[in-house]
Amino acid sequence: MRMVDIIIKKREGKELTRDEIHFFVKGYTEGSIPDYQASAFTMAVLFKGMNKKEIGILTDEMLHSGETIDLSSIAGVKVDKHSTGGVGDKTSLVLGPLVAACGVKLAKMSGRGLGHTGGTLDKIESIPGTSIAIERDRFIKQVNDIGIAIIGQTGELVPADKKLYALRDVTGTVESIPLIASSIMSKKLASGSDTILLDVKFGSGAFMKTLDNARVLARTMVDIGDELHRDTRAILTDMNEPLGLAIGNNLEVKEAIATLNGQGPADLVELCTKAGATMLLQAKRVSTFEEGVKLITEKIESKEGLDKLAAMVEAQGGNKEYIYHPELFPVSKNIVEVRSSRDGFVSEINALEIGEAAMKLGAGRATKEDVIDPTAGIILAKKVGDKVAKGDLLCTVYTNVEKFEDILKEIEESFKLSEKEVTTHSIIYEIVQ
Amino acid sequence: MRMVDIIIKKREGKELTRDEIHFFVKGYTEGSIPDYQASAFTMAVLFKGMNKKEIGILTDEMLHSGETIDLSSIAGVKVDKHSTGGVGDKTSLVLGPLVAACGVKLAKMSGRGLGHTGGTLDKIESIPGTSIAIERDRFIKQVNDIGIAIIGQTGELVPADKKLYALRDVTGTVESIPLIASSIMSKKLASGSDTILLDVKFGSGAFMKTLDNARVLARTMVDIGDELHRDTRAILTDMNEPLGLAIGNNLEVKEAIATLNGQGPADLVELCTKAGATMLLQAKRVSTFEEGVKLITEKIESKEGLDKLAAMVEAQGGNKEYIYHPELFPVSKNIVEVRSSRDGFVSEINALEIGEAAMKLGAGRATKEDVIDPTAGIILAKKVGDKVAKGDLLCTVYTNVEKFEDILKEIEESFKLSEKEVTTHSIIYEIVQ
Repeated sequence: MRMVDIIIKKREGKELTRDEIHFFVKGYTEGSIPDYQASAFTMAVLFKGMNKKEIGILTDEMLHSGETIDLSSIAGVKVDKHSTGGVGDKTSLVLGPLVAACGVKLAKMSGRGLGHTGGTLDKIESIPGTSIAIERDRFIKQVNDIGIAIIGQTGELVPADKKLYALRDVTGTVESIPLIASSIMSKKLASGSDTILLDVKFGSGAFMKTLDNARVLARTMVDIGDELHRDTRAILTDMNEPLGLAIGNNLEVKEAIATLNGQGPADLVELCTKAGATMLLQAKRVSTFEEGVKLITEKIESKEGLDKLAAMVEAQGGNKEYIYHPELFPVSKNIVEVRSSRDGFVSEINALEIGEAAMKLGAGRATKEDVIDPTAGIILAKKVGDKVAKGDLLCTVYTNVEKFEDILKEIEESFKLSEKEVTTHSIIYEIVQ
Repeated sequence: MRMVDIIIKKREGKELTRDEIHFFVKGYTEGSIPDYQASAFTMAVLFKGMNKKEIGILTDEMLHSGETIDLSSIAGVKVDKHSTGGVGDKTSLVLGPLVAACGVKLAKMSGRGLGHTGGTLDKIESIPGTSIAIERDRFIKQVNDIGIAIIGQTGELVPADKKLYALRDVTGTVESIPLIASSIMSKKLASGSDTILLDVKFGSGAFMKTLDNARVLARTMVDIGDELHRDTRAILTDMNEPLGLAIGNNLEVKEAIATLNGQGPADLVELCTKAGATMLLQAKRVSTFEEGVKLITEKIESKEGLDKLAAMVEAQGGNKEYIYHPELFPVSKNIVEVRSSRDGFVSEINALEIGEAAMKLGAGRATKEDVIDPTAGIILAKKVGDKVAKGDLLCTVYTNVEKFEDILKEIEESFKLSEKEVTTHSIIYEIVQ
C-alpha cells in the first residue's frame, strides 16, 4: 500500500477502506508517513469529504493510536461533556457538580486548549490551591467517592490527533468537518466515559460561524457515536455573545458559584439545566427530559450542586472556603467601567473581539508560555437584546495591566448596536441525537 | 506574510497576488517554507485552479528561482521544441536538423526524463561516441557554427520546479494543469530560446489521456508564453499508438536517419514537416505555413537535414559514419517476430503497454540507476488502421534479454484489434497559438 495512492483515491472522491485509513493513521503516528503526504491528504479530505462509515473508521483508528482510559473501576454511569469552545464558557463548573449531585459520575479529563480566555483547567486553577494534575488512581478514587473530578489530560491520548491537529493548523486544513469531528470524538471516546454530550457553539465567537455548519458538525459527531456504539448527543448553542456575564478566570468561577447558588444569569442557567437534563437522560438517571430539568433545578435550589463543587475543590487540594465565600477571591487592581457612547439595542457582543480584549487584559494566553492573571476579565452589564442609552454601563473591566485605554475602546466596539429593537432566541437552538 | 494564509486563500478559490506567489516560490526553494505546506498548497491549486495571470506569475517566479541560460551570443533566431512525452518519439532528431538546415538555430537542452523508453539524450548517446555533456561555451560555439546542439541540462535551471515536482509526485498533485504548465514552461523559458513549440500528446501512451485535456494544457502553456512575451505555439498530436515504427534507442536513431533520407514513416514525416513549418513561422524564416512545409520538404530531399545531424554528431564527439551508414549500428542478439493470433483491424497500439514492454526488453529504465541497452526495442509492422490476418507479422522485437516469452505476450496484447474497419486521423489534430 502506498500513501500517494490513498491521497489520489480520496482526491478523486472515492470511499477509503478500513485498511487504507488504518495505514494512514498508523503510519502517520509512527512517522513512516511524512507530514507532506498527510497535509496533501487532509486537503483532499477537506475538498472531497468523507462518508459516515469512513469518519467512523477514522475516529476509531485515531482513538486507538495511543492509550485509552479505562474507567470500568468507577461504579455507575460515567457521563462526559465537551464544548467546542466559546467565550465566558464556565458550563462544566456548574453542570459537572449538578449532574454529580444527581448521582451520575463525571470523570472529566480536559485538554489545555489555546482559547482567547482560559479553558476549564485554568478556571479551576484560579481557585487557590486547586490542582488539575491528579494521578490516575487518585482520579478514579475521587470520582468513586464524590462523583466528580475535572483534571488535566495525562498520558498519550490520541497521539495521531495531536500530530495531525498541529499539522492542520499550519496547512489550512482545520476547517474540515470530518477532521474536526474525528479529532474531537477520538479524544472524547479515548477518555472512557459511557455517554458524551457535545455543546456545539455557533456564531461570531465560535469556531462554527453559522447554525447550519454547527448542525452538520453536531450530526457528524453524533453519527460517529452511533458508529462506535457510544451514546452521543449534541446541543447547538448561540455564541453571538459571551455566555453569562463573566469573562475571565476567577470572575467566571464566581459566576459558576452564583449559578449554583440560584443566582445565575438566565442563559447560563438555561444551558446548564437543559444540558444537565440531557446528560441525565443519557445516563438513564431520568426517563424524560422534563424530569431531568426538574431534578437539576432541585439540585440548584438545595445547594447540593454547590456542595459538590466544594467537595471537588477540596479533593483536588483547594480551599473550599472560596466556594462558600467567593468574596475571598483576589481582585484586580484596576476596576474600570465601560460606558456606551451611543443609543441603541445590543444586537451582538462579538465574542471573538471581546475575548481577545479579555486576553489583553491578562485573562488569556497569546502564546502557550504566557501566564494567566486569574483576576483579569470583564463583567457584562448588557446582553444581546438590551436597550442601551448613551452613558449606560456596558461592562466593568478588571485588570492588573497598566495601559488599558486602547483595550477599553476595543471592548466598547465589540458591542454592536442596532437602531431597531432586537429579538432574542433561547440559547439552545436544537438538541441533536 | 504567512504561508498558511496563502494556502487558505487559494483553498477558498481566490486569486493570489504576485507577492504571495513570490513568497511561496522563494520560500519553498530556499527551504523556509516546508514540504508539508507546499503539498497542501499544491492540492488546493489542484482543486481550485489558477487563472491566466496567476499561472503566468507562477511560471515567471519559478523561472527566476535559479539560473537562466543566456543565448544572446548566438546569432539569429533561437527556436526550441518540447514534447510532453510519448513512445517512439524521435522527433527532435529529425526536426532539429531540418530547421537548422533552414537557417534557424536550435540550442536545445534536454532533461533526462524517466519515460519507459529512453529520452532524446539516451537516443543521442546510442550513437557511438556522441556526448550530451558539453560545456556551456562549446555549446554556444557549436550552435553558432552549425546551427544545432542538443545537450543535457547543466547548472541549476528552475530549482523550484525540481523540488516541487518531486513533492507533487509523492503527494498526488501531479495532475494539475496550472502546475504541469508552469513546470514545463518555466524550464523552457529558462533555457533562453526566442520561440517555443510544444508537442502536446494525448491518448493511452500520453500523460494527457484525452484531446480535451491536451487542448487545455496546450492553451494554458501558450497563454503563459503570451503573458511572458515569448512566442509559444503548440501542436496536439495523437499518442494512441507509438510514433513511427521504431521504439528503442538506436532503432529510433536509425528511423530518424531514414526519415532524413526521405524514407520515414508517414506519421513521423507529417509531424516533422508541420512542426518544422510552425517553427519556421515562429522564427519568421517563412511567412506562410505552406512555405514552411515546402522548405522543410526540400531539406529532406536535398539531404541537408541529414548533413546537419551528421555535423551535430561530429561536433559532439561522435562518429558521423553511423549517420551515413546506419548499418554500422550494433544490433541485439535476439531478433524475434511477434505474429497475430487473431484477425481484425488495429484500433490501438497501447503505447503505455508497448512502452513498458520495450523497457523490459532493455530499451528503458525502471529506476534512475538502470543502464539502457541501446540496441533493444521493437519495430512495428502494423499501425492503427491496418488490417491484420491471423499469422501476420505485428512487429519485430530486438533484445539481449534471455527470457522474453512473457514480454512477447504483453507486446501482442498491446495491439488492440477491432472487428470493424478503423478510421484513422492525421497525427496532428490542432495547432494552438
